[in-house]
Amino acid sequence: MIKIIIDCFGGDHSPQANIDGALTALAKNPDLYLILTGDEPTIHNYLSGKAYDAERVEIVHAPEVVGCDERPIDVIRLKKESSMIKAVRMLRDRDDINALVSTGSTGALVAAALTRIGRVKGVIRPAFCPILPTMNGGIVGICDSGANVEVTPDHLRQFAIMACLYMEQVYGIIKPRVALLNVGKEAEKGDEIRQKAYQLLTETPEVNFVGNMESRDLLSGNYDVVVCDGFSGNVLVKTTEGTAIELLKKLKKDIYSRGIYKLGALLMKRMFKEEKEFMNYQNYGGSVLLGTSKTVVKGHGSSKAVAVEKCIEQAYKMEVNSLSSKMEEIIMRYDHYEY
Amino acid sequence: MIKIIIDCFGGDHSPQANIDGALTALAKNPDLYLILTGDEPTIHNYLSGKAYDAERVEIVHAPEVVGCDERPIDVIRLKKESSMIKAVRMLRDRDDINALVSTGSTGALVAAALTRIGRVKGVIRPAFCPILPTMNGGIVGICDSGANVEVTPDHLRQFAIMACLYMEQVYGIIKPRVALLNVGKEAEKGDEIRQKAYQLLTETPEVNFVGNMESRDLLSGNYDVVVCDGFSGNVLVKTTEGTAIELLKKLKKDIYSRGIYKLGALLMKRMFKEEKEFMNYQNYGGSVLLGTSKTVVKGHGSSKAVAVEKCIEQAYKMEVNSLSSKMEEIIMRYDHYEY
Repeated sequence: MIKIIIDCFGGDHSPQANIDGALTALAKNPDLYLILTGDEPTIHNYLSGKAYDAERVEIVHAPEVVGCDERPIDVIRLKKESSMIKAVRMLRDRDDINALVSTGSTGALVAAALTRIGRVKGVIRPAFCPILPTMNGGIVGICDSGANVEVTPDHLRQFAIMACLYMEQVYGIIKPRVALLNVGKEAEKGDEIRQKAYQLLTETPEVNFVGNMESRDLLSGNYDVVVCDGFSGNVLVKTTEGTAIELLKKLKKDIYSRGIYKLGALLMKRMFKEEKEFMNYQNYGGSVLLGTSKTVVKGHGSSKAVAVEKCIEQAYKMEVNSLSSKMEEIIMRYDHYEY
Repeated sequence: MIKIIIDCFGGDHSPQANIDGALTALAKNPDLYLILTGDEPTIHNYLSGKAYDAERVEIVHAPEVVGCDERPIDVIRLKKESSMIKAVRMLRDRDDINALVSTGSTGALVAAALTRIGRVKGVIRPAFCPILPTMNGGIVGICDSGANVEVTPDHLRQFAIMACLYMEQVYGIIKPRVALLNVGKEAEKGDEIRQKAYQLLTETPEVNFVGNMESRDLLSGNYDVVVCDGFSGNVLVKTTEGTAIELLKKLKKDIYSRGIYKLGALLMKRMFKEEKEFMNYQNYGGSVLLGTSKTVVKGHGSSKAVAVEKCIEQAYKMEVNSLSSKMEEIIMRYDHYEY
């Protein structure tokens, strides 16, 4: 039995979307057991009348909710009875629980997980790995994208190993093509950390390292994993999202500026809907924290039921495929000491 | 008289676009004097028959051309007779020459300028500052975006001072709103460098510092200058360009996939053309190197005549407004020692 905790509050459409997504995942996977955290009466109320296997669902009362603008440090210290922090604590304390899915504040979740949940043996720093769609219909994982603003070459190698296993085991990508984010293609580009990481990655046969990637090629479909420090990874992911959102907004505004454009857009309605769907992160699942001893998946704040279900599927696959023991096995072959 | 050297080779449309742009700028500014570097017979040939004030144009023979994939170090060492390196050398050696405009390899130009041209007094590190269009029709300068992959808080403060003056003097933006690129809005976000830079910037009255900016807000129009290290600045600029290009490409491909979409797009032809124009870097001028003792402007490799003319205008305005002495004046008030 795979036991996953669902933090039912904190997202834009929670708790309904979180609970609905949970029930769909439950129906699809007979060996899945779910623990829902949040205000019990509310959850109970929403569940009543729904058809589901109540034997495989547990509700844990946690009356507080973490807001998206709260400082992570305050959340961890003061919001112990929140649906998120209680879930993290239970994940840490209960051996029978495998994973956690949350759509709440990224900062708070990552901070709580990093400080409360242990690491896979050998992992120096867990890393945050979101997924973006590429222009040829594929996906690319970006690791790290915010958990570590400063890194060493050894960290970067570990990020590559962890993200490779993740893309393989969860998305079925065989021998993922791994690139190092840099300011140019040549091996000698970037600072000393990048140069050293480049060398380490070429010496790691478990990683299919294809060289440096310039950020303009992120969506090209030529890469399955991009390895980077959390600062530039954060810039990479948020700039991509920001540019796409701003461009679509501008397009929409311009369409509404003239009748003939509106008419044209009407003919292209289905296409625009598809473009919007294509750029909707919800369709690509959540961002995982790689390297913690138990799986943590962060769904987008605006996740609807289908996105929550995808996050649960991700966590489930990571557990079923014993991702962390595979990770440990490879990581222990290389330098893994903090310094 | 403002004397500017134009590197006539190295761009996709050179030398024609470079020479045409030069002649237009020449006609508009009676106190402009231009020195064209490149293969003399070719330049001469192209000029013959054109109407221009030959008294204010000089041709300097430089038979070699720098390719865009050559290693900067090799270019500087081995391509001394190239139109670019000869131009840089003349800029250094001739007191009467004020500025240089090139559409050749960015890496080679920046490396040559940094190693061959002196710095404005007090400037620890010159920085590269491209301009991007924002969604409300404005522009934003990103400084540094590649000249310095590693920075200190003092560097970042200098980047802010230099970029502010540039946006004010060249684009007429009064009291530019300056943001620090970071992984979150709060003052304590990011690594120690970012935290310290945040503090320094609040203590710099010459800079209208408005706080941290998350990369997703780059195009929002809420900022006039974004200050960052050259690594993440490079990621910021190239990700924005890359995402915009990939999205437009996808849109185009999707439009051609069905007749009805093609029909719709036909009605929106003018709009799509405007969107394309809007995202065309050429319309926003070149990227300048700020903090070198003489002005260096890098036009996009695909620059056509109008873009080259804009680059010359930028260099001209920087010189007419004595940007470097204004820079020096403010920078000398603050810590400016290398350490």
